[in-house]
Amino acid sequence: MNLKPLTLQSGADRRLRGGHLWIYSNEVDNKVTPLKGFEPGEQVVVQDARGKPLGIATINPNTLICGRLLSRDLSHPLDRSLLVHRFNVAKSLREQCFDQPCYRVIFGDSDGLPGLVVDRFYDIFVVQISTVGMEVVQEQIIDALNKVFQPQAIVLRNDGKMRATEGLETYIEVVQGEVPELAPLSENGVNLVAPILTGQKTGWFYDHRENRARMQTLVKGKRVLDLFSYVGGWGAQALAAGASEVVCVDASVTALEVAAENARLNNGETRFRGLQGDAFDLCKALVADKERFDLVIVDPPAFIARRKDIRNGERAYARINNLAMRLLGRDGTLVSASCSMHLAKDRMVDILRSNSRELDRNAQIFAQGSQGSDHPIHPAIPETEYLKAYFLRVLPSN
Amino acid sequence: MNLKPLTLQSGADRRLRGGHLWIYSNEVDNKVTPLKGFEPGEQVVVQDARGKPLGIATINPNTLICGRLLSRDLSHPLDRSLLVHRFNVAKSLREQCFDQPCYRVIFGDSDGLPGLVVDRFYDIFVVQISTVGMEVVQEQIIDALNKVFQPQAIVLRNDGKMRATEGLETYIEVVQGEVPELAPLSENGVNLVAPILTGQKTGWFYDHRENRARMQTLVKGKRVLDLFSYVGGWGAQALAAGASEVVCVDASVTALEVAAENARLNNGETRFRGLQGDAFDLCKALVADKERFDLVIVDPPAFIARRKDIRNGERAYARINNLAMRLLGRDGTLVSASCSMHLAKDRMVDILRSNSRELDRNAQIFAQGSQGSDHPIHPAIPETEYLKAYFLRVLPSN
Repeated sequence: MNLKPLTLQSGADRRLRGGHLWIYSNEVDNKVTPLKGFEPGEQVVVQDARGKPLGIATINPNTLICGRLLSRDLSHPLDRSLLVHRFNVAKSLREQCFDQPCYRVIFGDSDGLPGLVVDRFYDIFVVQISTVGMEVVQEQIIDALNKVFQPQAIVLRNDGKMRATEGLETYIEVVQGEVPELAPLSENGVNLVAPILTGQKTGWFYDHRENRARMQTLVKGKRVLDLFSYVGGWGAQALAAGASEVVCVDASVTALEVAAENARLNNGETRFRGLQGDAFDLCKALVADKERFDLVIVDPPAFIARRKDIRNGERAYARINNLAMRLLGRDGTLVSASCSMHLAKDRMVDILRSNSRELDRNAQIFAQGSQGSDHPIHPAIPETEYLKAYFLRVLPSN
Repeated sequence: MNLKPLTLQSGADRRLRGGHLWIYSNEVDNKVTPLKGFEPGEQVVVQDARGKPLGIATINPNTLICGRLLSRDLSHPLDRSLLVHRFNVAKSLREQCFDQPCYRVIFGDSDGLPGLVVDRFYDIFVVQISTVGMEVVQEQIIDALNKVFQPQAIVLRNDGKMRATEGLETYIEVVQGEVPELAPLSENGVNLVAPILTGQKTGWFYDHRENRARMQTLVKGKRVLDLFSYVGGWGAQALAAGASEVVCVDASVTALEVAAENARLNNGETRFRGLQGDAFDLCKALVADKERFDLVIVDPPAFIARRKDIRNGERAYARINNLAMRLLGRDGTLVSASCSMHLAKDRMVDILRSNSRELDRNAQIFAQGSQGSDHPIHPAIPETEYLKAYFLRVLPSN
């Protein structure tokens, strides 16, 4: 492979040498190697201002993040062979951590494959490609998955938001095998199903696995409220762990239908209730009805998608957690999560502190969690850490 | 109880209303209620500048933190009855989280009892009092412990550093029952012993319980190095979980003797080795000898005791983690912990990032942990969160 060079401006190599994988368009020396001279998805040898090579990146000349480093070894471009290597390295971590083959196989940058996410549901693999650099090696990705994992089926869930920015069309396609409407999976020893073709993202959020395991230890005989439940990832596991009743709240009827199925799979149909509607409105109604729960889970979609949403987003987190706390009994547990990368941990703790004081209650954070081991954090890329879960005990103020 | 008022300056009530428990000496209105008019340990009714009461605090007129809020209810001063109530509330959290009666019973501010720490080893209770406000109710503390827990023995480990600041003498005293040299305990299903009369702090560090549980899942058949091992809290649990070999490194001969005993208790004496000496020096020697481990635990004492130590402390964390990474094989695991409250999480991640790049290796943080549930965090008091543990996979750079 004879790759063209991409020359960075002086000093712009520092972040890459520090471990980061992204190149911003204003870091390229456009006089020496004009970005418009590259094809979207083309691979290049990145070099510093003195011409010293740093590795191989894929290029998108049309995006703010114009380059993504795929390899620090010039003899290993992004091809089937590198994909096989990266998949094997990723597989070894997951096999060490999980006893069932249900997990995120590849978590983008953190597994050395920017732009690629792969979730597996036993032998069904769901692939999300979000950069043009990955799109052009789509066939090699499928080849390499077959080599390393021998999947029965492969789905491309190429309908993520980022694709438009990258100039890619959005589509969902089963490229191999046959796929049921609801794919089976196992999480924390609980059998569940996920709508991999029609649900959110890849159909399931494996990232909360360890937080749900912790939740399971707290719910036996307890009344549980699962806000923004989606297909009942939390709620069904609470039922499996012996909760006396679980109320799942979600805006989507179809998500609640899958949640009911997940309840049924765990012998929880008589202890399950689905409430369709806006979580804020439904919480207000539950407060008005003087309903009380032993444990409330607040796991909303990202209220802060971009930096400019921080202020409004923090207010939304404050409002929903205030409502949730009002639904707790005397000695209740709030599990409060956020998947907003832009919500800082200390800000989230302060929101929860403020919530508890407004209601004249004391709070103890007795556990905190992050994303599971199949969503490793890249220490040079803060964006790879996004998930937070706080377990609060909410008590009377004296 | 007829308590004197302590009047705060205008605005100085805000932090207390927000949930905090500490009053700084410069926040008191010394014209209205001069601090020197109070006895050390005296209880007062704290009131804002307008005379509105906020709760009951204990006073030490001679320290920077001159007051600690014990109760927001004026009808409940710090007495046997309040202690019994607080102990019951704390007990209920621990009983929900742990199946053996071995845990931190009271974690100071977070359990509404500033200045008091109690650890239990089955029916042996170890008490640490660090403020004069708690010292004056020592008898009531012992009474209340007997009422709620019926301990067989109670030890006062009143030899903490903070006592001198508070004007208290330091001593160790068995005030009830009989105490063996090594107290038995159970952690994560592993039977162990702790030197409660002669060891560090209360004799055992329960705070790492959940991080050690995670470590246990990673060590079967593996060669493990436990740096700053103290009495082998990590090492012995690694042996119990099937590690092929554990090397404990500590500066203290007596700590290593207890570590050997903990290894023996878990049928690990033939797989255990203790190395006495400075961890930095011994690591350098192991590097020179080309020793390699599958998993290295770096759990040092606080390198950053005070804010002014941050720079030197961060350098020390960087040096020891660099040495630890050099002792890892091709695909090794580093468990890197810090109990320095002043080491920020993002700084710690950046130190580990920098370490890995210096050695031209890639790192994935696949798990992170904090202090266990018997060390709850008070959301208004950042000082109550201090423990960090990062689980890093350290790989070749491509």
